[in-house]
Amino acid sequence: MPAKGVLVAVTADVVIAGGGVIGTAIAWRAAAAGLDVVLADPAQGDGASLVAAGMLAPVSEALFGEGALLRVNLLALARFPSFAAELEQVTGRRVGLRREGTLAVAYDAGDYAALMRLTAFRRSAGLDAEELDGRACRKLESFLTPDVHGGVLFPGDWSVDNRRYAAALREAAAAAGVRVVRDQVTAVLTGDGADGADGRVRGVALAEGGEVSSARVVVAAGSWSGGVDGLPAQLRAAVRPVKGQLLRLRHPDGMPPVLTHTIRATVRGADVYLVPRADGEVIVGATQEERGPDRTVTAGAVHDLLHDAMSVLPVTSELILAETCAGLRPGTPDNGPIVGGFGAGTGPGNGPGNGPGNGQRGLLLATGHYRNGILMSPVTADAIVAYLTGQPPAAEWEPFTPERFAATPAAGEGSR
Amino acid sequence: MPAKGVLVAVTADVVIAGGGVIGTAIAWRAAAAGLDVVLADPAQGDGASLVAAGMLAPVSEALFGEGALLRVNLLALARFPSFAAELEQVTGRRVGLRREGTLAVAYDAGDYAALMRLTAFRRSAGLDAEELDGRACRKLESFLTPDVHGGVLFPGDWSVDNRRYAAALREAAAAAGVRVVRDQVTAVLTGDGADGADGRVRGVALAEGGEVSSARVVVAAGSWSGGVDGLPAQLRAAVRPVKGQLLRLRHPDGMPPVLTHTIRATVRGADVYLVPRADGEVIVGATQEERGPDRTVTAGAVHDLLHDAMSVLPVTSELILAETCAGLRPGTPDNGPIVGGFGAGTGPGNGPGNGPGNGQRGLLLATGHYRNGILMSPVTADAIVAYLTGQPPAAEWEPFTPERFAATPAAGEGSR
Repeated sequence: MPAKGVLVAVTADVVIAGGGVIGTAIAWRAAAAGLDVVLADPAQGDGASLVAAGMLAPVSEALFGEGALLRVNLLALARFPSFAAELEQVTGRRVGLRREGTLAVAYDAGDYAALMRLTAFRRSAGLDAEELDGRACRKLESFLTPDVHGGVLFPGDWSVDNRRYAAALREAAAAAGVRVVRDQVTAVLTGDGADGADGRVRGVALAEGGEVSSARVVVAAGSWSGGVDGLPAQLRAAVRPVKGQLLRLRHPDGMPPVLTHTIRATVRGADVYLVPRADGEVIVGATQEERGPDRTVTAGAVHDLLHDAMSVLPVTSELILAETCAGLRPGTPDNGPIVGGFGAGTGPGNGPGNGPGNGQRGLLLATGHYRNGILMSPVTADAIVAYLTGQPPAAEWEPFTPERFAATPAAGEGSR
Repeated sequence: MPAKGVLVAVTADVVIAGGGVIGTAIAWRAAAAGLDVVLADPAQGDGASLVAAGMLAPVSEALFGEGALLRVNLLALARFPSFAAELEQVTGRRVGLRREGTLAVAYDAGDYAALMRLTAFRRSAGLDAEELDGRACRKLESFLTPDVHGGVLFPGDWSVDNRRYAAALREAAAAAGVRVVRDQVTAVLTGDGADGADGRVRGVALAEGGEVSSARVVVAAGSWSGGVDGLPAQLRAAVRPVKGQLLRLRHPDGMPPVLTHTIRATVRGADVYLVPRADGEVIVGATQEERGPDRTVTAGAVHDLLHDAMSVLPVTSELILAETCAGLRPGTPDNGPIVGGFGAGTGPGNGPGNGPGNGQRGLLLATGHYRNGILMSPVTADAIVAYLTGQPPAAEWEPFTPERFAATPAAGEGSR
């Protein structure tokens, strides 16, 4: 164990690797359930959680054929308001939940045809969708270009201010007694002996050389999850970074708000969204790029986002470009999250996830949330706390356990 | 005099209000000439000097009919290399002077016609200009779009890295003994009595409540010059901020340089320039906006700059958008700088500028450089040091004394 700086050596009931909204929501709820929680992150909240629009839009994020993902997203949306209300109540902070709904607009006839397919999909899920012609769209949002072909109002697709939400989660976790270690988890440690032969988790190793001793470990490290040693190799390979660039715009002093609803626009086949915040920010996003760990902001992406946003909402040109940023969403091969433990004892309805038969007893994952991390954070916290306290998680999680990627952990990966 | 914090009360031979490239170049040369110099600026170098492309292009910045401005710009270009060489020699720093020349390119036939007019103007000034077809342009710069209609190579239009240049000036000034007061000059103080009746400068008042006592004051405060009390009202009104937004791009790791020459492009009537730096930066600029003191970066300006740059150099889209920024150039009614003193004793060839007949004896101005501050900083320093040491400034300055805006200072403005 390389030692540099001051070594951290603490013990806890559970240690959580990753301080984004997923890890912090879990930490808060686990501490509120009476567990002694340590959360480890070198820069709490500097990941994908801060580079997000905070759209709470379960259907439009689920592709055709992803029925299981749609079901867990719908569970997440139903849970979000009560979770946010409790968070606001315990912290006294506002998280900026907006319920005005989402107006999807189509720029041309081809875009409109694609929107109609999305609308049919949404209705098949039993959700509201109100078709509007261009004039009706502009009645809802007067700054839309007259060129808009038509649109659909999705009144149940909301948004939250991801940065306020993340800040409130941090405060709630701290108030509940969560201890934060500002260091990177490099490995999950298993076994009492040097070979980790018994497969029981005993804590985590930190980049600066310290350790946290704990019989339970939750890996919630987003796109960095694959970099944690001690996880099965297939699982590490299953999480990849998907780069997203977005813009934070602000209204100049004295300009009235240019938007009320979230706008989700398709401009000649390109998707762009504009999400208004209560404090006058407008988020414009987002690219989806397979570029590995690259987090640079590129001229082309900024141009394209501005171009598409200005195409549907010309007044965007008058807004202040306050920030450009790029984040790495944790993507998975099936676009679904990875939530739960290993082995027969870890499925939904099967108890605490540290029973006999586990690949790595005491290890839980909460990662791979891709574009739905903000939306899914409350129900992910619910599921992980259920595992930790011996309760069954919601049945909607059954398709999303880690076992689908690592049912038979490879030898030499510290498991079984 | 309101007092807050620690009061500054110092004396000097000359105090310079403003620490951009103009003020700092003057400070360096004045100290090198043996004067005891104090330079006052609340944030030395946080003004227009840092939001510049550093183009040294005297002709293309002078409009038709501005012959006097062209002459002083040509003087400035001729002076720049030796000034930069001395600066590099005394500081050991590189200022990034690039002499590859400027390639002006025209996107369409209308742009080409405008370029030919500029070329004729340039040739009338006796300078080199080499006409090139699109193919020859791409031979010089292989990443140019094949759509470029044609271009002209101006081998004598150079560039300098404005930030390196400004940093070297600051270091040279410090090494020469210039003392820096980090405070804002709010007023030029005149007269021994309360009414300032004798019109002699006695120093400056600072925002934090202090004073610098000095028989000579140089106001080099750029677009803030109009905010200095004690200057004639017409002069204060003559300097206005002209907003310019520009972008700083960077090459991603491993990408070879996309440009060698400065590119000055006209894209369907819109001007954009791309200036490569030795360290891999590419500056894209710049807007010209009459927006008062507003320094915000707007979505529309960033879009337009990126769009025009990508139109002529498509590979721009792959560059990293490292910074967006906005600065305020000090514009004047005739687009010319304001350099010199007042009264019969201050014209070129007439001595030190504190003789009988001055409006405000001991007061010199060095402001209003608009788009040419970097280029003109060496010759402006030469001219002001000439005034300060009783030498005649170059004859090219004669049309640019403050008197053209304030020949008869108004009563009650603390002058005459």
